[in-house]
Amino acid sequence: MDKLVYFFANGAAEGNAGMKDVLGGKGANLAEMTNLGIPVPPGFTISTRACVRYFEADGKMPEGLEEQVKRALAGLEKAQGKRFGDESDPLLVSVRSGAKFSMPGMMDTILNLGLNDRAVEGLARAGGDRRFAFDSYRRFIQMYADVVLGVKKQEFEHLLVAMKRARHARHDTDLSAGDLEALVRRYKEKVRKAAGRPFPEDPREQLWGAIAAVFRSWMNERARIYRRQYAIPDDLGTAVNVQCMVFGNLGEDCATGVAFTRNPATGENVFYGEYLPNAQGEDVVAGIRTPRPISRAQAGGDAGGSLEETMPRCFAQLLEIRGRLEAHYKDMQDIEFTIERGRLYMLQTRTGKRTGLAALHIAFDLHEAGVIDRKAVLQRVEPDMLVQLLAPIFDTRDKERARREGRVLAKGLPAGPGAASGVVAFSAKRAVEMAGKGARVLLVRAETSPEDLAGMVAAVGILTSRGGMTSHAAVVARGMGKPCVVGAEALLVDPDAGRLRAAGKVLKEGDALSIDGSTGEVILGALDTHPSEVQQVLVRRALKAERSPLYRRYAALMEWADATRRLKIRTNADTPHDAAVARAFGAEGIGLCRTEHMFFAEDRIAAVREMILSEDVSQRRRALSKLLPMQRRDFAGIFKAMDGLPVTIRLLDPPLHEFLPTQPEQFRKLAREMRVPARTLEEKAAQLHEANPMLGHRGCRLGVTFPEIYDMQARAIFEAAAQCVKKGIRVLPEVMIPLVGTVREFTDIAARTRAIAEEVHRRTRIAVPYLVGTMIEIPRACLIAEAVGREAEFFSFGTNDLTQMTYGYSRDDVGKFLGAYLERRILRRDPFQGIDEEGVGRLVRMGVEEGRRGRAGLKVGVCGEHGGDPESVAFFHRVGLDYASCSPYRVPVARLAAAQAALAEQGGGGSGTA
Amino acid sequence: MDKLVYFFANGAAEGNAGMKDVLGGKGANLAEMTNLGIPVPPGFTISTRACVRYFEADGKMPEGLEEQVKRALAGLEKAQGKRFGDESDPLLVSVRSGAKFSMPGMMDTILNLGLNDRAVEGLARAGGDRRFAFDSYRRFIQMYADVVLGVKKQEFEHLLVAMKRARHARHDTDLSAGDLEALVRRYKEKVRKAAGRPFPEDPREQLWGAIAAVFRSWMNERARIYRRQYAIPDDLGTAVNVQCMVFGNLGEDCATGVAFTRNPATGENVFYGEYLPNAQGEDVVAGIRTPRPISRAQAGGDAGGSLEETMPRCFAQLLEIRGRLEAHYKDMQDIEFTIERGRLYMLQTRTGKRTGLAALHIAFDLHEAGVIDRKAVLQRVEPDMLVQLLAPIFDTRDKERARREGRVLAKGLPAGPGAASGVVAFSAKRAVEMAGKGARVLLVRAETSPEDLAGMVAAVGILTSRGGMTSHAAVVARGMGKPCVVGAEALLVDPDAGRLRAAGKVLKEGDALSIDGSTGEVILGALDTHPSEVQQVLVRRALKAERSPLYRRYAALMEWADATRRLKIRTNADTPHDAAVARAFGAEGIGLCRTEHMFFAEDRIAAVREMILSEDVSQRRRALSKLLPMQRRDFAGIFKAMDGLPVTIRLLDPPLHEFLPTQPEQFRKLAREMRVPARTLEEKAAQLHEANPMLGHRGCRLGVTFPEIYDMQARAIFEAAAQCVKKGIRVLPEVMIPLVGTVREFTDIAARTRAIAEEVHRRTRIAVPYLVGTMIEIPRACLIAEAVGREAEFFSFGTNDLTQMTYGYSRDDVGKFLGAYLERRILRRDPFQGIDEEGVGRLVRMGVEEGRRGRAGLKVGVCGEHGGDPESVAFFHRVGLDYASCSPYRVPVARLAAAQAALAEQGGGGSGTA
Repeated sequence: MDKLVYFFANGAAEGNAGMKDVLGGKGANLAEMTNLGIPVPPGFTISTRACVRYFEADGKMPEGLEEQVKRALAGLEKAQGKRFGDESDPLLVSVRSGAKFSMPGMMDTILNLGLNDRAVEGLARAGGDRRFAFDSYRRFIQMYADVVLGVKKQEFEHLLVAMKRARHARHDTDLSAGDLEALVRRYKEKVRKAAGRPFPEDPREQLWGAIAAVFRSWMNERARIYRRQYAIPDDLGTAVNVQCMVFGNLGEDCATGVAFTRNPATGENVFYGEYLPNAQGEDVVAGIRTPRPISRAQAGGDAGGSLEETMPRCFAQLLEIRGRLEAHYKDMQDIEFTIERGRLYMLQTRTGKRTGLAALHIAFDLHEAGVIDRKAVLQRVEPDMLVQLLAPIFDTRDKERARREGRVLAKGLPAGPGAASGVVAFSAKRAVEMAGKGARVLLVRAETSPEDLAGMVAAVGILTSRGGMTSHAAVVARGMGKPCVVGAEALLVDPDAGRLRAAGKVLKEGDALSIDGSTGEVILGALDTHPSEVQQVLVRRALKAERSPLYRRYAALMEWADATRRLKIRTNADTPHDAAVARAFGAEGIGLCRTEHMFFAEDRIAAVREMILSEDVSQRRRALSKLLPMQRRDFAGIFKAMDGLPVTIRLLDPPLHEFLPTQPEQFRKLAREMRVPARTLEEKAAQLHEANPMLGHRGCRLGVTFPEIYDMQARAIFEAAAQCVKKGIRVLPEVMIPLVGTVREFTDIAARTRAIAEEVHRRTRIAVPYLVGTMIEIPRACLIAEAVGREAEFFSFGTNDLTQMTYGYSRDDVGKFLGAYLERRILRRDPFQGIDEEGVGRLVRMGVEEGRRGRAGLKVGVCGEHGGDPESVAFFHRVGLDYASCSPYRVPVARLAAAQAALAEQGGGGSGTA
Repeated sequence: MDKLVYFFANGAAEGNAGMKDVLGGKGANLAEMTNLGIPVPPGFTISTRACVRYFEADGKMPEGLEEQVKRALAGLEKAQGKRFGDESDPLLVSVRSGAKFSMPGMMDTILNLGLNDRAVEGLARAGGDRRFAFDSYRRFIQMYADVVLGVKKQEFEHLLVAMKRARHARHDTDLSAGDLEALVRRYKEKVRKAAGRPFPEDPREQLWGAIAAVFRSWMNERARIYRRQYAIPDDLGTAVNVQCMVFGNLGEDCATGVAFTRNPATGENVFYGEYLPNAQGEDVVAGIRTPRPISRAQAGGDAGGSLEETMPRCFAQLLEIRGRLEAHYKDMQDIEFTIERGRLYMLQTRTGKRTGLAALHIAFDLHEAGVIDRKAVLQRVEPDMLVQLLAPIFDTRDKERARREGRVLAKGLPAGPGAASGVVAFSAKRAVEMAGKGARVLLVRAETSPEDLAGMVAAVGILTSRGGMTSHAAVVARGMGKPCVVGAEALLVDPDAGRLRAAGKVLKEGDALSIDGSTGEVILGALDTHPSEVQQVLVRRALKAERSPLYRRYAALMEWADATRRLKIRTNADTPHDAAVARAFGAEGIGLCRTEHMFFAEDRIAAVREMILSEDVSQRRRALSKLLPMQRRDFAGIFKAMDGLPVTIRLLDPPLHEFLPTQPEQFRKLAREMRVPARTLEEKAAQLHEANPMLGHRGCRLGVTFPEIYDMQARAIFEAAAQCVKKGIRVLPEVMIPLVGTVREFTDIAARTRAIAEEVHRRTRIAVPYLVGTMIEIPRACLIAEAVGREAEFFSFGTNDLTQMTYGYSRDDVGKFLGAYLERRILRRDPFQGIDEEGVGRLVRMGVEEGRRGRAGLKVGVCGEHGGDPESVAFFHRVGLDYASCSPYRVPVARLAAAQAALAEQGGGGSGTA
């Protein structure tokens, strides 16, 4: 029989940190801490396998589980010397979920399980505090009823409020033990009515109900949304941790807290956390009471009441554990602890989430301290997080002016770095709606909860008036890499009225506001955002590299990444400016220069339209001859910016009707300019209309039917190249023929292109080394890749179109069902964001392998948007591509992702520590 | 060095009939006849390889060719005892093209080559006929100038007319030798002026010019159009046949003719041909003089002047050769001959083109005569031709009435069987235009030429006033399987005036006319067409099988085909009527029943629109509940028609917006009916609009997002099935989920479908064996076929959509470039007509193999339109499909094609003769 339950107590555990698949993150680390001799309340973990089986069996508990839990419970009773349901000193347990990947706020927790009408008396007797015992019982009933029996929390809050009103009590603490005893009776009555059955008195029944509820919570909506957001598979399941209760709410010598071993926003090496004296469980994270700092250092010395000051012995022990955990895990930890009557218990440790900035600094600090090696540094920074280092900031002068003008409304905690300005929304729902209409939205809440997730995804920044650095808002925003300010207590947020008051100002929905997630400032009005420090060094050259330690670490990281990766990184850029930016970010060439964007420019569109509406070839040639010098200038500018690096230029791709006006009024204007009747133009446009333009007359199909268009472009490319070479610029043009699905399309157009190159060569006597290749974006091109490879000098996968055609999804229309598909897990990820390895990826693999069968060593890249997605970059590395091309701002992301892919390949699961 | 020239003379040839690839059809058969001892003028054939090399070298003659031609010429001179360009008795040759596949009228021919100013005198002296010599010279100059030098024929015709006028001559024959001599001078002057250089006097220069012209003619537009029509590759090249001239125009003991060894329209076993006394070369085929019959039998004894009567000795020799050729080739032959001064020469033999009717009868006659076996019979009938046997005929009563009313305008030759009625077009151009607008067009010409090809393709029938059974119109129409009447001399066709006069009636463009290609009748007005004899037996049961010999042979052919083939043939049918027709034609089940066609019916569309425009699920369910009984009736009708055979029903596929009105007026009407504001409907419709509906919200994507639609359909299917079973009908429903691209789409919908089947089963207590499978039409489905195969109980390839997505071609838009793609041979065939084996076919192969890896013995079929295309059917056989499904009228075609595919597999290239 399978082992489904893992025991831990008194310095010995059956599991360890390497068993996250089986025990979940929390359970694995509880076992590990137990083994390290760190004080952890005894307990046991029910394996994720049990959860998976539970769903496979449509909600039946797996065979053998009951027996194993029974044995583990017996072990706990023995370890604690207490008995479950005992009337004198009952064993109480917490039941918590714990999946492989940490999912904050997603899963449900039950405390004080084991209490019933008799055991509560035992607890009262044993603890000598009847009020505490009944308060615990009351909380347990409420939590259990909510999570297991489906009776809403509010039902009980109403009873509590009524009781307080009857007793003229202001706080819960003003209620007596007798009041609470009465309340327990009312709670149980409520449960009987609302759930249709009595509250279970049998602790074992309670436990099995809780276990099933944890299992079920794996599939609740919030959990699924979270997994969708982070592309976590649905079939992992969650473990269940059953652990002896310890109490942080037995008096002033008790406390509960959460902490990071370093500052998760900045990476600064200070012990950084929050605690609440005389509090239980989730009180800190919930953000209901504003907690106190752990250390003096973190508060800058000026906030009293830190744990360091109030409970120095426990603090010292915690500090020692902090050191041990960091030394053991070799990374910054996110910990939870409870102090029961002066005795410290660790309830959790896990690798802490952090901002990109913090990730960079922590990794380098640990490296400089000799804890981890370079490889580990490279692996510690999530590529996507680098975008934060490039994310905009506010100009200090703008902020200065705002300060002078009294527009700084509040200062909260800098929970997610980066600057954001936008319009205010007071609910997740409105944030989603407003963002859907194109607004940049700041989500403003008193505090956030998992229900706000969709709104947080939609917002450009998040602001709360309550909560600390470990509050829901802060943790989630950092995870998403979004600017976030929390605990800005000077703000009075009234979501029902749709109003925010602060510093005498009133803001309504849609009013402009700015937040600086690096300083915590909340500023009235929309401040302009500006390039980050790294950008200022790299792109603007407005800051010397040596003056920015951040830049220096960024540069070192990139240097190591470049030394590690095999995959080259290019950029998709259509202008000299974009090309220059991307080059500053480390692009090693242009992988996709779209020529149609040039066609849309103000000064060209008239000539383009004339070309399209031409009645015959000679008229079309005339119009094209006007475009030629402009395109030549375009290309010359890009070649100059990319001096010495290859530039892949895609010949015209979109259907011609995309260039035409759409409104009757525009047609009339164009007709006047072109001196033809508007009717003529409209008729011509109607002729060009297509039922499915994505599958229509575009790409090389234009090149075949209107060869003079591609001829003009080829001429512009080679003439521009010759001009540049004359000026001493090194030019490496790669002409890319789009949408090839047959060999003949390629060979016909390539022959014309090469003839033009030859002719320009003869005329100018300047030799330009060039390649003619093709974009592989039609499924058929992958299927005949060997034959195409014999002709083409390079392939570049256009994974956007390839995804569209392989799935049969139009990007413009997929929104009609994509949401439902992700929701029901028909798709794990949006295939336009992360490459579909199984389907589209199989075609890519086929294209690479067979293309190289046609031409040994064929150069192969990718220029779809997947080129900037780390998971996809790893795939492209694995299938042996030569390069990936992405948007300029994703170039550093792709460089790091490529390095991590190379390390993963060498890998073998080594920890990479020094 | 490669052998490029093959000699034949005096009973010995270097080639033979098996070398068509190298020698072309004509050259191979000339060699074969020579070897058989049949009198053939000596000559040599330049190989197709030389032509291919010529194009590869951009118009340079291949190395070695000159030397080999020189040697062959010397051989000819020796065989004939004459010398090329000789002044006393010159060797004259004909130069003809001859490709592997016969392409009537496509390639150019030059006669009398070798004449010049001195040789013509030699010819005059040797033949003793100065007039004949100069007439030959004149004709040669005209032909050569037209074909080689690009000087139009008309230029010379003008000169001829002027000369005739000056001499008051009515016929060419009224001109004297001196007149012709003068004319030759004027012709040569014309050449000098029009071509800018003198007419070549050197016979060798003449020969090389002619060879190059034949090569080039391989790539002329007419030839390419023909090859496109018949899917003949462009890279085969043509051979060139150079042969000693024989003259059919040296006097009344001379003649030239063409013949079929049997009647090519009916298959009747009579020698069937035409000849012209004292005529040269192409005069018979050109249709300028109406030729005389070869045999008395063919003319029904009533037309005098047959070759049998005028030249009985030659006729006897020809009859003997006819017997020898049929015995040797074991098939009906199409021959050309010339009689020079009482001596017979064979100029060509080839397997003759025939109608489907003739093909059937000839094959059975040869079989019954013990010449060929059953396999050969199956191989001799082109599957596509069977459509002719099912093609409509006129009702004899209608024809009788037309006769009484004097509406039979003329009687021509029955050149292509089948009845057609339509509107008259007098030019190919107008025929194409009118057909493009949806008209059924009869192309009416005095005679047709290769320039008319496009119009013949566009027309439903062809009618000419001149020419015989072997005229261009007759040959091409038979090739296309189109009704055709030729040589209806009572018609006066004036294409310039756009007028047709006959029997005192005048018809203009667009007037209605009918032709009966089986009797030759031309009838005023549009007669209704009716089912053919085979149809009357099979579908109408209006004729007893034993009363139709045609039906009996058809039935035998089909029976043998069924015994031979492995691939099953199903039909695509959406109504009980179509299902019944298809069943009569031998369909073994329904491979595709499209449920959406039912939705469009008058009495349902309102409920469908209500369902689409529903605001919520309950409203949608209400609308669907109205559709349920209707769909149930539909399915019950189809199950009944298909009693005992499987019926594959595809769940709803098209995007919902297809069911909505498109015009504002229709919206207003619908709004009144539905009692909602028109605006609301228009807004809803606008919401449903898609940029690329082909890649949009359709197929199983509808089933996922609106499960209640598929639920209704599944319920209708299983309830209808239960009803039918109760009535003793055997029902085998196969529910097909369309557009599956992921496993989860299938499993989710299949689970719901099976649950409904279970529920109906429980309720009715009637067990219906059923399958749930999927349509494989998204490239991704082929790529994950193994996983899909584990879940689905059958696959059916939807090759229409699969072709669209694999190529990235929208069927609705491909017209914008498909013509150019076929023209430039980027595509060999329209991939929507014939399956693309290399690309789409590779996905199909992958889908079959991997699907069966997922489920051993998985049932796999195809239901795209390729199911009725013989070439595609052969492919489906080869990849191991279980069945192909096609439209009802293509079922016999597919059955025969499947049998031929099975034979080809056993094959080994055997001739299949008895």
